[in-house]
Amino acid sequence: MTLTVTADVRETVAGLRRDVARLHGELTRYALVVWTAGNVSARVPGHDLMVIKPSGVSYDDLTPENMVVCDLHGRVVEGEHAPSSDTDAQAYVYREMPHVGGVVHTHSTYATAWASRGEPIPCVLTMMADEFGGAVPVGPFALIGDDSIGRGIVETLRVSRSPAVLMRNHGVFTVGRDARAAVKAAVMCEDVARTVHIARQLGEPLAIGQSDVDSLFDRYQNVYGQR
Amino acid sequence: MTLTVTADVRETVAGLRRDVARLHGELTRYALVVWTAGNVSARVPGHDLMVIKPSGVSYDDLTPENMVVCDLHGRVVEGEHAPSSDTDAQAYVYREMPHVGGVVHTHSTYATAWASRGEPIPCVLTMMADEFGGAVPVGPFALIGDDSIGRGIVETLRVSRSPAVLMRNHGVFTVGRDARAAVKAAVMCEDVARTVHIARQLGEPLAIGQSDVDSLFDRYQNVYGQR
Amino acid sequence: MTLTVTADVRETVAGLRRDVARLHGELTRYALVVWTAGNVSARVPGHDLMVIKPSGVSYDDLTPENMVVCDLHGRVVEGEHAPSSDTDAQAYVYREMPHVGGVVHTHSTYATAWASRGEPIPCVLTMMADEFGGAVPVGPFALIGDDSIGRGIVETLRVSRSPAVLMRNHGVFTVGRDARAAVKAAVMCEDVARTVHIARQLGEPLAIGQSDVDSLFDRYQNVYGQR
Amino acid sequence: MTLTVTADVRETVAGLRRDVARLHGELTRYALVVWTAGNVSARVPGHDLMVIKPSGVSYDDLTPENMVVCDLHGRVVEGEHAPSSDTDAQAYVYREMPHVGGVVHTHSTYATAWASRGEPIPCVLTMMADEFGGAVPVGPFALIGDDSIGRGIVETLRVSRSPAVLMRNHGVFTVGRDARAAVKAAVMCEDVARTVHIARQLGEPLAIGQSDVDSLFDRYQNVYGQR
Repeated sequence: MTLTVTADVRETVAGLRRDVARLHGELTRYALVVWTAGNVSARVPGHDLMVIKPSGVSYDDLTPENMVVCDLHGRVVEGEHAPSSDTDAQAYVYREMPHVGGVVHTHSTYATAWASRGEPIPCVLTMMADEFGGAVPVGPFALIGDDSIGRGIVETLRVSRSPAVLMRNHGVFTVGRDARAAVKAAVMCEDVARTVHIARQLGEPLAIGQSDVDSLFDRYQNVYGQR
Repeated sequence: MTLTVTADVRETVAGLRRDVARLHGELTRYALVVWTAGNVSARVPGHDLMVIKPSGVSYDDLTPENMVVCDLHGRVVEGEHAPSSDTDAQAYVYREMPHVGGVVHTHSTYATAWASRGEPIPCVLTMMADEFGGAVPVGPFALIGDDSIGRGIVETLRVSRSPAVLMRNHGVFTVGRDARAAVKAAVMCEDVARTVHIARQLGEPLAIGQSDVDSLFDRYQNVYGQR
Repeated sequence: MTLTVTADVRETVAGLRRDVARLHGELTRYALVVWTAGNVSARVPGHDLMVIKPSGVSYDDLTPENMVVCDLHGRVVEGEHAPSSDTDAQAYVYREMPHVGGVVHTHSTYATAWASRGEPIPCVLTMMADEFGGAVPVGPFALIGDDSIGRGIVETLRVSRSPAVLMRNHGVFTVGRDARAAVKAAVMCEDVARTVHIARQLGEPLAIGQSDVDSLFDRYQNVYGQR
Repeated sequence: MTLTVTADVRETVAGLRRDVARLHGELTRYALVVWTAGNVSARVPGHDLMVIKPSGVSYDDLTPENMVVCDLHGRVVEGEHAPSSDTDAQAYVYREMPHVGGVVHTHSTYATAWASRGEPIPCVLTMMADEFGGAVPVGPFALIGDDSIGRGIVETLRVSRSPAVLMRNHGVFTVGRDARAAVKAAVMCEDVARTVHIARQLGEPLAIGQSDVDSLFDRYQNVYGQR
């Protein structure tokens, strides 16, 4: 049985095609990606479907029309192009984490530098406490081609408050309630990876107490922004 | 008693809404901010009012109309949006420092790196002597939610010639006679934070004598620019 | 005997003039070059001709018309301008490596930093395994003016899977099946040079096993992108 | 006796106003300056006059009309604005170095970092040998307000082949046969300052032999670019 984009979900998918295509502009704006190496996807809420970037297509050339709709095993349901080579990993995340509505993958420089040493980013900034609720954790080394990457992401995020995971020797995956939240987490992850890296170049950053981290995280998740 | 924007101040407020909205463009131009993490405010001269960025709204979407007018205890006087979560801290600064007409808050990378180590930026550049009159000082660790941040800013700036303070583990607050001057201080603070950081990566910068610092500061504050 | 652009190849050359002129925009987009210090060339398939940037002309001023057509000994066949001073080196590469259709030269910052220490970039990122199949190797120090640079490039690339070579104390040369592929290699080379540099600033990156490198390289070369 | 812009030089001055205004765009393009902290000037050939940026005016607001014409003692000859606070230093250079047709001043990050340690940039890149003919030298610490800065620049450049000098704890001054050449030297100086800094973060760059430096410098000064 192949899933299809049925009439009732057509409008939702059209909106997600626009969102996902456009959100890649944030990856280039913040220089989280070069060439074609990074992507955004969104779950189609209430359906076993996701919308994702086509593989190897330049960011300049992304349009709502060339986004690819896949089922949650990575099979193409609608689209002229092959989907991102990260589709299987992201589909795994959607299958296993029902509250996740968006996934982003980048090789952003500073986060990937931490990942290549297999070292979590310590929580030494109030902005990290706000957004990540603690350290940004490291997931295992995993080869592309089966469920290894997806499993590594899910197992690492399940025991953390962080929406970002540094996959060893590879790069960053972030999740969010929707694609925009996952993109925000990718932007913030690189920002704190860079700031903490630079801080540590000339000494040791001061620690933030666990109760202060908790208090900042709770407030930010519940109070910040427009109601 | 609630303050309101009375007829006599309407035009001034309209101008400040334009200035404050537009000055955020300098924060993005110099990459002092990512996503929505930083803001500019301006005092309404002669009134217990301030104009500030709405909370969690993208820089691309800022307009004179969606700026928020608050009183100097952070209560919204005019505006459809919730004000920046830094409103209380900035209101405290306006209450306690009557010569301050503008306040800026960022988490700019290099300045925040110094802040996370709790280390002042030493004055080893003539440009720092010009603008800051000495080292850029560090304020205390403070949680959001009461007057702690505002008090930390004011207590630190009162015993310094610097218009910038590095709040520990957090980021930068700058002040100026108006919003533009505070934005300039934020731009210069990140610039000197970066240059001195890079200088120290490969050795120790040479000191500038105190009398030379004083002479540069006096001249720059009194002679530079157009009369 | 002088080679000329004969009628049958006129259209191909016109297309390559457009491609080569436009691809320089990727060098400036990713800040791989400053002023006029870097260039792209393309082989004219099936002819002993190449299309290359004119020497010392600003990137803003490049047009299809001012590109220069040379033979594979660097002699101008068509064009009003003197060709890039790297023409001889690139012509040598086209003569000796028949599968190469494009060559790029830059002094991009991080790659050139590795080159100035004469140190290969170790393969500690999955993205490096994908694109370079191992370390990015270092070629010899060579002066401009004879075949030394071209020979150094060819001798180094022949014993490596990498499409990029770091020429000692100089900069980067990359090759590809066409000019676009060589530009991609130049972009990726600087990206991995930067990430691995930053990783090593705070410790030692974890190694990737040789069989994993092989597996990633094989898959990327054969499966990635659109069919 | 006050110099004036006489009729025979009016057209030349109009052209230089356009050139100098526009060349500031290269300083912002390559991020050599922030806010208003850097400037370009040009000698009016055959006259004791120079064209320079007005003091404290934003780069966005520079036009041919608001450039300032001064004599070579820094007195305003034509213009509505006060000239750059670096006018005296640059006027001194024009008086003492008759072959210089353009001067640029910046506080570009990496060059200023070397300057703050009082350390010359060693010549370990072929691009440095090309453009600078050796190390980029350091000039003395000097306060603004008399001839000290100008004298420091001239004394340092006179004993070097470099068109750039790092003024201690301050920033960079570059010279050229015209304003464009001085801007090029400023761009290249920051580029090599950055690359050599980054190279040295992880080890010691390999030396280039003096005869190779000489050979590269001679060729570049005499052969490179369009005839």
